[in-house]
Amino acid sequence: MTLPDSATPGLRLAPPAVAGQPAATIDTPSLVLDLDVFERNLAQMQQAADKAGVHLRPHAKAHKCPAIALAQIARGAVGICCQKVSEALPFVQAGVTDIHISNEIAGTAKAALLAGMARHARLSVCVDDARQIGALAEAAGHAGSTIGVFVEIDVGQGRCGVADAPAALRLVQAIGAHARLEFRGLQAYHGGIQHVRDYASRRQAAADAAARTAAVVAELAEAGVACPTVTGGGSGSVEFDLASGVYTEIQPGSYIFMDADYGRNDYSGALRFEHSLFIASTVMSVAAATRPAPRVVLDAGLKSMAVDSGLPLVWGAAGPDQALAYVAANDEHGIVEPLTRAGASAASLPALGTQVLLVPGHCDPTLNLYDEIVGVRGQTVACLWPVAARGLSR
Amino acid sequence: MTLPDSATPGLRLAPPAVAGQPAATIDTPSLVLDLDVFERNLAQMQQAADKAGVHLRPHAKAHKCPAIALAQIARGAVGICCQKVSEALPFVQAGVTDIHISNEIAGTAKAALLAGMARHARLSVCVDDARQIGALAEAAGHAGSTIGVFVEIDVGQGRCGVADAPAALRLVQAIGAHARLEFRGLQAYHGGIQHVRDYASRRQAAADAAARTAAVVAELAEAGVACPTVTGGGSGSVEFDLASGVYTEIQPGSYIFMDADYGRNDYSGALRFEHSLFIASTVMSVAAATRPAPRVVLDAGLKSMAVDSGLPLVWGAAGPDQALAYVAANDEHGIVEPLTRAGASAASLPALGTQVLLVPGHCDPTLNLYDEIVGVRGQTVACLWPVAARGLSR
Repeated sequence: MTLPDSATPGLRLAPPAVAGQPAATIDTPSLVLDLDVFERNLAQMQQAADKAGVHLRPHAKAHKCPAIALAQIARGAVGICCQKVSEALPFVQAGVTDIHISNEIAGTAKAALLAGMARHARLSVCVDDARQIGALAEAAGHAGSTIGVFVEIDVGQGRCGVADAPAALRLVQAIGAHARLEFRGLQAYHGGIQHVRDYASRRQAAADAAARTAAVVAELAEAGVACPTVTGGGSGSVEFDLASGVYTEIQPGSYIFMDADYGRNDYSGALRFEHSLFIASTVMSVAAATRPAPRVVLDAGLKSMAVDSGLPLVWGAAGPDQALAYVAANDEHGIVEPLTRAGASAASLPALGTQVLLVPGHCDPTLNLYDEIVGVRGQTVACLWPVAARGLSR
Repeated sequence: MTLPDSATPGLRLAPPAVAGQPAATIDTPSLVLDLDVFERNLAQMQQAADKAGVHLRPHAKAHKCPAIALAQIARGAVGICCQKVSEALPFVQAGVTDIHISNEIAGTAKAALLAGMARHARLSVCVDDARQIGALAEAAGHAGSTIGVFVEIDVGQGRCGVADAPAALRLVQAIGAHARLEFRGLQAYHGGIQHVRDYASRRQAAADAAARTAAVVAELAEAGVACPTVTGGGSGSVEFDLASGVYTEIQPGSYIFMDADYGRNDYSGALRFEHSLFIASTVMSVAAATRPAPRVVLDAGLKSMAVDSGLPLVWGAAGPDQALAYVAANDEHGIVEPLTRAGASAASLPALGTQVLLVPGHCDPTLNLYDEIVGVRGQTVACLWPVAARGLSR
């Protein structure tokens, strides 16, 4: 269908930026990563895990970017998590050698790809049904590989995972019947806890989940089953998970970027991460700036950000902009109005062509919209990192 | 960063489906297009435009797929709309020769790409500020091309577009000062009208917008300015736009797919489009199917659909499923529960591994998540169409 390039000579889409270019001239909409802040976030999490003697296995579903996974591993991470089988492929190809698929899978295509990757890297996956175990064993047999298996337990979210220790034990025994499957332990993750705003309430919810996990570990031990690894935790609960003594491994993802939604949590404790990820946008219309309801229009809307967890924050020179609010996302337009507060007025609206930085409401699905991340150091573009697992949701 | 393929021999992600395969075995999550329904939608819109003597210029922001654009043009469309400059590039490369960018643009990179494409195809763009005109003229001069220019007028949305005829006239005159720019007419689009549920209210809102447009056209005519084209309208208002006598061209996009949100409009009139686009998903966990709050988990969540306009509908054998509701989207999980109504119960929940079809809440940003569309004819896969403009939001 596509004509040969010779039919349209000289026509190509330039990258959004090149190294050395001023950050203010990045073509928009683009994802921009403040590398200094990002590296502080990386270091803080690794140090916290090291101090607690717990393995850090960051979740790559948050970034889908091999360059970031390798940076995490270089600082001490034991490997990464992925949430889908296909998502893991570019990481295996980039040389990541230890990947846990923190999810159940269905279908022979997925089991076959997983078993194939397990010939090149240490791979594991979750189960919560005996039928999944049979499918994994068959695929591992065909590929001649070994697949690590975690039994997922439900610690309160009511989504995936078996309900109790007897059910977990039955799955451990089923795994043990297959030579090419290796029981590696338990996964206990509660997504709902991560976004509990109040610090004390979040700490209590994490303690409840950890207690449920500890009880299952103890019951399995009584039955003679040791859990080499107990994996779980996320960016909102990780401080408590590290201190719990229950988890041997934590799986946080979003801490590297710290989206607006996670930013609304109360962090009274030791760990506090900073916003490092921004959407660079541009004011493309000011036709309505001088009307009774003054506003300007940005070139970044629903196709440049996920809004499931709220609209983005407008970012100023040194923190959230005190004069502007992003009030509506259309498909390709973002509406910005003066913040309704004393001192804010139409005069504060940015001019046509101005670059505006936004903190995405939810980083994971926002990353999944972009093919590259523009890394900046200070006010200068430093690198362009492919989001190699973008769209790999199978 | 990526190792040579020889480092991971035999490892690749298979396409989600191949022609001839049963639709029930498509790897998931995937976008599935019912080609019979899609072709009925295409035909209905083209016939309505032909009958009214109005040009149809479908909006490619809804599909981002050259194969679909060429199918629309083959049936009589005069060209397509794109919403971003970069979005147009794969269509130019696929041989689409007439593209209107139905938006303002900011920045020299975008103007340069537009002017470059205008050497290969008939291109036009919108303006609502004199400064945009200068930037376009400069880029056209560098490229040696001619760019068509539409003056956008605000007909009630309060987003982009000048407020009145005198402001429009000033821009028409500014365009006329540049030999490489060609004034092509007015764009008058009101996105908010499209989703007014009640038929009579939507008709009235469309009539108001058309009246405002007609008034500007008349004022310009009095000033000696003819508008060769008056372009606007969307899938929700097109019936009224065609009958208005004001528009010479309509720009609907979503009619080809008919998402769940558009489906909630009341269509009492002549035009009624059918759902042709689905997300194929699979039940990946039934661990919570027998609990007090019974549910199953699908493998399609926020990274497989846009939820800004509501959650997807579960699709049954011949219409919306009467027993199941998709109640929550997590990043990579979708939660399905029995519909709360008489006769629905946990017994109606689908089994592990079952394929479940969903009608996306909002097709445009959902399409933007996928690299291909799986076309099916009856129960068999017929084609795989690249979503070549996916992610091209600059």
